[in-house]
Formats: sequence, C-alpha cells, structure tokens
Amino acid sequence: MRSTDTLLLTRKNVADLLSLEECINTVEEAFKLYAEGKMQPPKILGVHNQKGGFHIKAGLLEKQDSFFAAKMNANFPNNMKEYGLPAIQGVLIASDGETGQLLALMYSIEITILRTGAATGVAAKYLSRPESKTVAICGCGNQGRVSLKALMEVRSIEKVFAFDTDSIRADRFVKELSKELNITIEQVTDLEKNLNQSDIVVTCTPSKQPFIKREYIKPGTFIAAVGADSEEKQELYTELFAANKIVTDLTVQCASIGELHHALVNGHITIANVYAELGEIIAGLKEGRTSDNEIIIFDSTGTALQDVAAAAIVYKKAVTMEVGMKLNFSN
Amino acid sequence: MRSTDTLLLTRKNVADLLSLEECINTVEEAFKLYAEGKMQPPKILGVHNQKGGFHIKAGLLEKQDSFFAAKMNANFPNNMKEYGLPAIQGVLIASDGETGQLLALMYSIEITILRTGAATGVAAKYLSRPESKTVAICGCGNQGRVSLKALMEVRSIEKVFAFDTDSIRADRFVKELSKELNITIEQVTDLEKNLNQSDIVVTCTPSKQPFIKREYIKPGTFIAAVGADSEEKQELYTELFAANKIVTDLTVQCASIGELHHALVNGHITIANVYAELGEIIAGLKEGRTSDNEIIIFDSTGTALQDVAAAAIVYKKAVTMEVGMKLNFSN
Repeated sequence: MRSTDTLLLTRKNVADLLSLEECINTVEEAFKLYAEGKMQPPKILGVHNQKGGFHIKAGLLEKQDSFFAAKMNANFPNNMKEYGLPAIQGVLIASDGETGQLLALMYSIEITILRTGAATGVAAKYLSRPESKTVAICGCGNQGRVSLKALMEVRSIEKVFAFDTDSIRADRFVKELSKELNITIEQVTDLEKNLNQSDIVVTCTPSKQPFIKREYIKPGTFIAAVGADSEEKQELYTELFAANKIVTDLTVQCASIGELHHALVNGHITIANVYAELGEIIAGLKEGRTSDNEIIIFDSTGTALQDVAAAAIVYKKAVTMEVGMKLNFSN
Repeated sequence: MRSTDTLLLTRKNVADLLSLEECINTVEEAFKLYAEGKMQPPKILGVHNQKGGFHIKAGLLEKQDSFFAAKMNANFPNNMKEYGLPAIQGVLIASDGETGQLLALMYSIEITILRTGAATGVAAKYLSRPESKTVAICGCGNQGRVSLKALMEVRSIEKVFAFDTDSIRADRFVKELSKELNITIEQVTDLEKNLNQSDIVVTCTPSKQPFIKREYIKPGTFIAAVGADSEEKQELYTELFAANKIVTDLTVQCASIGELHHALVNGHITIANVYAELGEIIAGLKEGRTSDNEIIIFDSTGTALQDVAAAAIVYKKAVTMEVGMKLNFSN
C-alpha cells in the first residue's frame, strides 16, 4: 500500500531545496526532451478580473518516473501598494503521473524565480558569444538578481550595468550583489550608452511600454527578454525584435503572451520569422549562434516545462532529506 | 496587515462543512449568475497520458467578495485494481479574487461529488414533471447516492430503481440507502422495463459505451446524463439524445466532453439543436418544461461554476467554525 501523504513545502523549504545550478541543468534537459518529442506540449489557462489574474501552467515529465505539476500563480500588480502583499502569490501541485497521487503542494514563487533565471542561463549558454563579459540587467528585482547569477554559471562575467526606474532598488542591487558575487556592478541610467557596451542584455521589468530601441543594441549582443509574460507587457520595441534572430521558449506561448505577440499584432513579422525554440537548439536540431555579429533575442514567457522539471527536483530532495510537513488530505 | 495563512482542509473537513442543501442552493445561484453575465465563463485544461489524465477547472465568483477556485482532479480509472487507490484524487485551490491570497487548499472529491449531485437536483427542479415519483439510478457509486439525495430535496420521490453492472454494489446501495432515506429501493437488471416506469432517470456510470436506448424512455421523463465528462465516455445512444430537448450545464464544455460531443461527432445534431443552458432556465431567460410529454435531457459535464460556488461555502464555514489546519506557505 502506497503512502497517501502529501508533502507541504513552504517558500523557505523550496528555497532551501532548489539550487540554481540544479535548476539550470534540469531546465536545459526539459527543453531538450520537449524538442525531441519526449515531453508533451504544456498547457496554460488564465482567469482575469480588473485587479489582476490567475494563471495556471501544467505539464508532465515522464522519465524513469512520471511526474505532473500544475502551477497556479495569482498576479495582482498593485498588491504591495494597496495591501502590503506580494504581487505574485501561488502554489504548485505535484502529482504522480502514473497514479495521480497528490505528492506535494509547494509555495510557487521560488520555483518561478529560479526556473525563469535558469532559462536565461541556458539560453545564454547557447546563444551568447562565449567571450561575453559585460551584462546589462534592466529591472533590479528578484528576477534581475537570479538572471545575473544564472549568467555567471555559464559565462565569465566581469562587469554589470544595473538599470531600474526605481534608483533605490538599483542601488540595493548594486550594493548587495557586488558584495555577494564579488563582481563590478554599476548603476546606470543612460540605456543607450550602456546597452551599447553590453554583450548580454536581460530585460526583466513589469513594463507595459517598450523601452529598448533598436539603436541601443550593438552587433553580437544576446538579449534575454524575460519581462513580457502576459499580453499587455512589452519591453523591446518591435523594430528591434522583428529585425533580429528570434528564439522562443515555446513559440505558441510567445505568440500569445510574449514579445512575439506584439510583433505579430503590429504586423512586423509572422510566426515563420521565428528562428527556433530553445529546445531545438539544445537538442542539436538547429544551430545556435552562427556568427559573432548577429543579435539574438530569447523570448522568455516561462513554461510549465521548467516548472515541472524544477518541481520534480524539489520533491525528490524533500523526500530524501525529510523536509516539509506531511498531511493526508484524503482522510 | 492581512493574515497570510492558508487553510488546509482534508476530505473529512470538507464533508463535515458542506451540506447537500447548501450546495444545491449555491449551485443554482451560480448557474443563474453565469446566465445573467455576472460570472465569466470558466476555463478548463487537460493533460493526459496512457494511464489517465489531469483535469483543471477554474472559475471566479464575484459577489460581495471575490473568490477564485481552481480544482485539479487526477482521473486514473484502473487505480483501485492496480494500486488500491481511488480513481479520482485531487485538490482545490481557493484564492481571494481581489488580492490573489492563497486562502485554502481542499481535498477535492467531496466537492466534486456534492456539486455534481447538486446540479442534478437543480436541473430536476426546473426540468422534471413536478409530480415525478419514480427514479431510476444507473450507476450505484457515490454519484448515484448523492443524485438520489439531491432529487429527494426537490421532488417527492416514492420509489427508486437501482441499476449497476456490479450487483454487489447495487445491493449495497439498496440496503444502505433504503434505510438511511426511508424509501423503497429495488435492485433491477431489466433496463427497458424499469426505465419505462421511471419519471426521472440518472445515469452516472463510467461507461464508454451507450446503454440507454430511445425506446427505454417514456414521454415526460427527465434524464440527468451525468457520467459523460470526458470525450470517450457515453451513456445515452445518440438517437435518444438527439431526438429530445437538450439542456446543458455549459454548451461549449458539453460539445467537447459531454453526451453532446458524441451527437455532434455522429452528425445527428448541431449546436443549434441545444435548447438551453441550465442557467438560462433558472434565470428565466428561457422556459423550462413546457409540456408533460416532452423528454428533457440534462447533459451534465461538471463545471467550475459549481466548484467555485461550493468551495466558497466550504471556505466561509471553515473560517467561521475554525475547522482545518493553518499553514503560512509564504514563510
């Protein structure tokens, strides 16, 4: 008789269990499995009202074990101002893919942050110039922090430009991360000047207005466009996006909620202009970077492929290390 | 500062908190609100593999408070035989619709059973002849039990026929419910003979083959077709379904996973042949039964409208009565 206990993992439990390095490795593998037809396309669902929305992303990872995850994130952008609550709150349901048993319920934010940063790292590994040294981080929140750490796992970064419309947040980013990561970080405000000196640009703001223009970006740059993950969000001008080599996490998802969405709506390009999905490059089905001069843009909307892969690691480690509280919900 | 505790409610907690009578009332109201344009269309998502599948239904109930629910049910039909586990296992996530706060996590099965039975009761109230006395229950599992109880809330039932391909289950149904409900229940095997004597017929089996023929049903009967809730399930022959007055819970959902699905695929009818959604009749936008002779079929696939309405009651009562365990997931 199998145990019917469900493991309850708080934000801290998840943070303690999941390392960025593991997350990068498993996210890379998940994208590859998907491209090879060994994972089915993940599904998404959204319910919205005037104050925000609820988004569910669900996927199934079938390796030795079969593992299902559905992540529900509530996104209420004015929460902090209005209620002192985080904008994003949610839970991930993990189930056995062979029996449907409810294995775990995890607070979702750490998984969202790490798996998104991990995708940026994986994409940079395949799409940035190997000698990339200078990074611009636009948006100095949690995602900016983990993005920088993920880039440092795959490239020898020497210099960082930190940009945020909130200069206090940028300042904190500079102080905390330059110490923690032992790297030179400079707060900047002149996007044109500083992006032109960057090998890698990460955009991870909540912006609904594009702010990165085509002329800001020098040849050879890799851009991870992370912020746009709903149809009203946008960070890159479509002229920049449409003119360069586009790699998506999932093309169908980017077409509805990513930077790609805006380029399609504006009629600048069609789906056929998308060069590849990240997994196709990892799996060797398509070449990654083919010249030192091309600008490559990774449209990152965040997928259930990443969620389920990261959650599987969290769950396995929690069981092994006996972390979390157990509850038999079916009693 | 608002509390950020999440309430954990086990199967027993939910069963103790939710009465069938309350559930019928709230389900009736939810269908009505939806028909009046005061609830948005709920969303569904499905992920399947060879052994089963995961289904998510999500909806938002906005009355005085705003309440979101997403219910994830795993359905693995061979679970009991293979692993000694229930076929359906799942959890319902309840969130504040204004702030996205994670209010509660509930084991889902009791909500699924009760809200489905409640819809049968509500449909019978509007669509069966008021003097209906004799009921046939096809499928003597949990859903058969709650369906009978729900019918007894809305009609003066005097006689019940219990049919199940598993005669031990039918026998248990007869013994237990005739005592509990103080009513005459007879186990039957001749569908044609006994359905012809029934005013109300409920089908709630896991059948993938239709077994109710057109000639089994007498004029004036109300049929609640509850079993079909995925594209491969079917209980009524399409000739029976297509020839009569069809009321759905949600037409778009029935068209993909209900009895309606099969009638459409077989080309017997088009969507235009559907008479109404249940909510339209409750709201008075369309008439219910207009003659004592018509056969009316309610295609019940189970909707998030019902889930969110039932979960809102469970949550409010749990808070008031201080039931359930609290956990701060965001710590």
